[in-house]
Amino acid sequence: MVKINLSPSRELKKIREKIRKGEFQEHTRGVCPNHVPTNVVILPKDLAFDFLKFCAYNPKPFPLLDVTDVGDPMSLTVAPGADLRTDVPKYRVIQKGEVEEPVTNIRDYWRDDFVGFILGCSLGFEKPLLDAGVPLRIRDEGKLAPTYVTNIPCEKSGSLKGNHVVSMRPIPSELVSRTVSVTLQYPLTHGSPMHIGAPKEIGIDLDNPEVGERITLRSNEVPVFWACGATSLQVAKESKPEIMITHDPGCMFITNLRVNALRWSSRQTFRGKFSSI
Amino acid sequence: MVKINLSPSRELKKIREKIRKGEFQEHTRGVCPNHVPTNVVILPKDLAFDFLKFCAYNPKPFPLLDVTDVGDPMSLTVAPGADLRTDVPKYRVIQKGEVEEPVTNIRDYWRDDFVGFILGCSLGFEKPLLDAGVPLRIRDEGKLAPTYVTNIPCEKSGSLKGNHVVSMRPIPSELVSRTVSVTLQYPLTHGSPMHIGAPKEIGIDLDNPEVGERITLRSNEVPVFWACGATSLQVAKESKPEIMITHDPGCMFITNLRVNALRWSSRQTFRGKFSSI
Repeated sequence: MVKINLSPSRELKKIREKIRKGEFQEHTRGVCPNHVPTNVVILPKDLAFDFLKFCAYNPKPFPLLDVTDVGDPMSLTVAPGADLRTDVPKYRVIQKGEVEEPVTNIRDYWRDDFVGFILGCSLGFEKPLLDAGVPLRIRDEGKLAPTYVTNIPCEKSGSLKGNHVVSMRPIPSELVSRTVSVTLQYPLTHGSPMHIGAPKEIGIDLDNPEVGERITLRSNEVPVFWACGATSLQVAKESKPEIMITHDPGCMFITNLRVNALRWSSRQTFRGKFSSI
Repeated sequence: MVKINLSPSRELKKIREKIRKGEFQEHTRGVCPNHVPTNVVILPKDLAFDFLKFCAYNPKPFPLLDVTDVGDPMSLTVAPGADLRTDVPKYRVIQKGEVEEPVTNIRDYWRDDFVGFILGCSLGFEKPLLDAGVPLRIRDEGKLAPTYVTNIPCEKSGSLKGNHVVSMRPIPSELVSRTVSVTLQYPLTHGSPMHIGAPKEIGIDLDNPEVGERITLRSNEVPVFWACGATSLQVAKESKPEIMITHDPGCMFITNLRVNALRWSSRQTFRGKFSSI
């Protein structure tokens, strides 16, 4: 009988407590590096089928870790003890495509017809990359991977549409192959890159990120692009649903799952969760 | 730009025509071995969200290749030219848990609120196994892999529930490791085995298959169990939805996709479909 480790580490308990109180409102990179950080999307039930189909159609930006029951802000599967209304450092509420100022909890927004979607995040494969000897310069420099809106539309589902957003990391050219090899082992954290090199081909000007700082590539570096959970923000802007709530970029929902549990895994419930693909 | 081959082979066109006319009502194993055979589940829109969530919760039995638009019996993504109402050799209609006699088309049952789910099938990894030197004795003997209802419940979604059904193939013990290595490369055809050896542990008496013939294991063989699309029939029996339509076991819906396109793939729409995981 498979049983994966869902007990929160002492570190996780501590930071979750702080986040809940609104005392931690920063980016979560490097916070509890053994725990899986995730994207969160919250939508009314009316849109839940279309969004779930959107995830199925576009699993690279939307690798699904859990869907909560209608009205339930908890996920026993990936984050027992956590509350989706309070345990993200900063949220973005988007009403009819208008992105509001960040808030530190969504208690006042929560509705009985809300469904929560918990989705893998590329920060989850940074530790495996480092462990495999792939340096992440932007991490060393304390920067977030810059994100860009591509010219590549997602496959539509009902009224939901939007172009793919990608995150970029500069990788030394001799390590690009290894970078693909490592990240494809983690399909639930966006998996292998969507695009390597040639940013213009996908409509990207490296000097103008959507979020994050501009990074000057060194001569031996190749820009490597991964599908990004921030695609959901783009979807909200383009599709203008009545309401969508998501995390502020970089301020992820930290789950009880361990990163190692996701290696070669699909969300799978054969007595445990996240068994092998 | 990735473009996968969706043109139907001459062989596929021919057999689809025969199936459509009701002239081919057999098992599809070995028919168009380069094309991906699939499970089909058809449900009213009211149940579609819960079923899609059921697939997300239980991706091993339900590896999702496509979801059709409401009322549309076509899938341009995996089977352009095919019609879900006619292009399965034999269907099973299940009303409130009662399984009706097989029919060769569902024209009279089709409704404007039906949604079709197209799901990978373990017959899809038989060719890769054979190519990798893993013999499939039951295939040589012209038998279907017997299926069994396990004691392992799927994770519920709304009113949908049911125990996992598995298919069993006897594998020479020295090739079990290779068998896992090959099939885990095909997550969209159920991927790696759910269980190896020790059938009683998952509630199985090898002498009493649910479907298919009893197979006597040879002394050097180990029973290897994969999650099976027939789990949907079990779900219909246990959950008793108003109506569910699925294929008759072994009589699969043959898609235009090539088996090779599914290696290390998730359904992914980065300009092509089914890009790498």
